[in-house]
Amino acid sequence: MITTRLTKQLGIKHPIIQAPMAFAAGGRLAVATSNAGGLGFIGGAYGDIDWITEQFDIAGNQRVGCGLITWVLKEKTDLLDQVIERNPAALFLSFGDPAPYIKAIKSANIPLICQIQTFRDARHAIDLGADIIVAQGAEAGGHGEKRTTFTLVPEVADYIAKHSPDTLLCAAGGIADGRGLAASLMLGADGVLIGSRFWAAEEALVHPKMWQAAIDANGDDTLRTSVVDVIRGYDWPDRYNARVLKNDFTDKWHKNIAGLKTNVEAEAVLWREALSVGDSKIANAFVGENAALIKDVKPAADIMSDIVTQAESLLKTEFN
Amino acid sequence: MITTRLTKQLGIKHPIIQAPMAFAAGGRLAVATSNAGGLGFIGGAYGDIDWITEQFDIAGNQRVGCGLITWVLKEKTDLLDQVIERNPAALFLSFGDPAPYIKAIKSANIPLICQIQTFRDARHAIDLGADIIVAQGAEAGGHGEKRTTFTLVPEVADYIAKHSPDTLLCAAGGIADGRGLAASLMLGADGVLIGSRFWAAEEALVHPKMWQAAIDANGDDTLRTSVVDVIRGYDWPDRYNARVLKNDFTDKWHKNIAGLKTNVEAEAVLWREALSVGDSKIANAFVGENAALIKDVKPAADIMSDIVTQAESLLKTEFN
Ligand SMILES: Cc1cc2nc3c(=O)[nH]c(=O)nc-3n(C[C@H](O)[C@H](O)[C@H](O)COP(=O)(O)O)c2cc1C
Ligand SMILES: Cc1cc2nc3c(=O)[nH]c(=O)nc-3n(C[C@H](O)[C@H](O)[C@H](O)COP(=O)(O)O)c2cc1C
Repeated sequence: MITTRLTKQLGIKHPIIQAPMAFAAGGRLAVATSNAGGLGFIGGAYGDIDWITEQFDIAGNQRVGCGLITWVLKEKTDLLDQVIERNPAALFLSFGDPAPYIKAIKSANIPLICQIQTFRDARHAIDLGADIIVAQGAEAGGHGEKRTTFTLVPEVADYIAKHSPDTLLCAAGGIADGRGLAASLMLGADGVLIGSRFWAAEEALVHPKMWQAAIDANGDDTLRTSVVDVIRGYDWPDRYNARVLKNDFTDKWHKNIAGLKTNVEAEAVLWREALSVGDSKIANAFVGENAALIKDVKPAADIMSDIVTQAESLLKTEFN
Repeated sequence: MITTRLTKQLGIKHPIIQAPMAFAAGGRLAVATSNAGGLGFIGGAYGDIDWITEQFDIAGNQRVGCGLITWVLKEKTDLLDQVIERNPAALFLSFGDPAPYIKAIKSANIPLICQIQTFRDARHAIDLGADIIVAQGAEAGGHGEKRTTFTLVPEVADYIAKHSPDTLLCAAGGIADGRGLAASLMLGADGVLIGSRFWAAEEALVHPKMWQAAIDANGDDTLRTSVVDVIRGYDWPDRYNARVLKNDFTDKWHKNIAGLKTNVEAEAVLWREALSVGDSKIANAFVGENAALIKDVKPAADIMSDIVTQAESLLKTEFN
């Protein structure tokens, strides 16, 4: 057992939060990780309220949280209230200024987790009163920025210690096994948020061929790019791009965004078709630099216990 | 005391290697870190043999190593032999294929450290028989690439465990205090290589105003860029760029390399002049994302003991 301020405050067994991954993290994965002693999240992402509702229904009575992309909330003005309605175990905001949404969340008494990518945004979210900060490094799968886990976590930990000692801190980006959990705790985190490794859980909504592509990959095989947003028609703010597995599609377009934009309609048909049949040469798996550490697909509960068992044993190492 | 395979194999007290930093790491710093129980390195970098000789003379009888930039060796064909002549405690090669130099180093019985930036290059250096691999993440100060410390270290550790269990592994990039050392050990490293934090040691060859700029910076204030190579006339291979503190110079030219190239003569005069007087608005401090963790300048021995003491105490934490 690894007990930290995070396990105590959230009333969970292990200091592990499962990331609210767009499309991949539905109710089934969220329930499985919560049942396994972590805290599971539905990936509310682009705010399809029918899908989110369905996933909360699948989660049933188990306590799960919901993640939302902050810049989406500006466009979907009812979304936050609709999600609060479902009484999530926590709300997780990322990719934008959380300030306009704090009041609604706090007055519903829902713990607020803010994922940040820079020290500047960390300071802002801490000062606003976020309960938990997730410091996300560039190694992460999916959207993010440039700072890395290794330096962002201790830097934010120092700010918290000085200015807001009750705020909790999780590390995110690159954590896929017990080594990553143990290292995060050494860096000053109270726990971790894990995406890619749970993306490769049996309960995740991912095509098995995409899983296979990630298992076959090493850590050099990913890149951060905007082409996956162009092709899907998502209007992400410039500062964020997505880490995905490289393939023929990124080889062709990553350095030619203008060219992609001119061909986007035809290419989008191919990309979506590839996604639906799991053709990883054309559609991109959203997975982090830790792809090399993903060696199999198994139930979330097994992933969780592997991570915790390995971290426990590492944390007992005697260096002499 | 933290004892690992690295301390045993190198016969040093602490599992800490001081990076061979171009211009900043002379004989004085190398001796100070070796005296403090780590292994110090002279930054042989671009291969000015007169300067290197002088630094070895300053180091005197203390055992110190020497770092060389691998692609420079191709141009300076006598350099490696000249350095081997000085019987360094170890040779440190980075930024290029070490294959052509292995034989000379091995037959002189000098331990070979290869710093790598990708899994692919790690595998190559391990298979060639490097004694120690330094896995350098993008957070590092100075030249490097894109992969991050947090995922590169465990990935390389797994390859070593399977294919070459006697090879040692150090983490580099982002390590500035005991948290970074403890985290690196959890990720599977046998020790760490530290640059930026020793760049801010009293014994380093750095203008005090440059130190102050790093102390004032937070981790968001650095970037990876090629403008500092263009301005200095160094012909670095495309894949590598340098992490430095942002300033007016990078604001102006980072996104306009072509423009800089047309103005390079006049700009170079200003940049070099600024470097010599420590004007950090124009000349760039070479320092990593961990700038935020650099809060003072002190003797290398104090930096060393702070790091070790903090790591020892963290590694004893009981999470219950
Ligand atoms: C498939 C996938 C989808 C993601 N979708 C979201 C999302 O919708 N909202 C969000 O805040 N983060 C999202 N992320 C990022 C995660 O919140 C988290 O920062 C990241 O997965 C951590 O790095 P790791 O993948 O190395 O564990 C996603 C990550 C992945 C892998
Ligand atoms: C000022 C400075 C100069 C550097 N020069 C070299 C060099 O000449 N050769 C080399 O292999 N690495 C060089 N590096 C990179 C270091 O070897 C090392 O990878 C890096 O400093 C580790 O990251 P850190 O700065 O976060 O400790 C330099 C780093 C700094 C900060």
